Amino acid sequence: MTPERFQELSREESLRLLASVAVGRIVFTHQALPAIRPVHHLVDDGQVIVRGDPGTILLSAVDTVVAYEADSVAADDSIGWSVIVTGMARRLDAASPPGRYRALEGDGYFIQIRPELVTGFHAGPRA
Amino acid sequence: MTPERFQELSREESLRLLASVAVGRIVFTHQALPAIRPVHHLVDDGQVIVRGDPGTILLSAVDTVVAYEADSVAADDSIGWSVIVTGMARRLDAASPPGRYRALEGDGYFIQIRPELVTGFHAGPRA
Repeated sequence: MTPERFQELSREESLRLLASVAVGRIVFTHQALPAIRPVHHLVDDGQVIVRGDPGTILLSAVDTVVAYEADSVAADDSIGWSVIVTGMARRLDAASPPGRYRALEGDGYFIQIRPELVTGFHAGPRA
Repeated sequence: MTPERFQELSREESLRLLASVAVGRIVFTHQALPAIRPVHHLVDDGQVIVRGDPGTILLSAVDTVVAYEADSVAADDSIGWSVIVTGMARRLDAASPPGRYRALEGDGYFIQIRPELVTGFHAGPRA
């Protein structure tokens, strides 16, 4: 594992990278403790949409400020990039989500995360 | 992406899986917001050890309860397993860490996470 140098990414580039992968992790608070779950996502009209399976603890995230992270890790375990979106999570009405949301695996409801803060970095080899 | 069925893992199996990979994500609070950063880790004598690069926001995690998550995502974007450790994060004295911690990439300090809660799941195909 080579030491890395981190470069900040623009909001646009960060959202583009986030949309290029299907799995990320939602970060929230559950029973006053930090909680995190890997989920599938898509980016739709600038909003992050994730699927909450029935019965999971993800309902704790609804109507709170959450973080959502996706990253790329290479075969040599180096971290290529990481994108973190922070914003309010809302539950979407199950009757109204567009058909394209069906690409998200599983049953259950959808959660929309508004990307109020978007940060990202790319790791290159140290100069 | 096939719908999945989740099976809970034991603490021992969860820690074994965590130790089998090199990258995870530490979850903490920074400026009153949920924060997450991908880092390298190792499991040493039952403790999770991660590297905090100089100047990062990871110092916000020190002396707080954090979550640490690692997972396995297959080439078809299905989530194979996920392990989440929750516990107090402590900064280790840079002068004292064992030589084996040098396997963790980069400069900076080490953070030890005590696995007070360990949860994990394995996702198999839906029956």
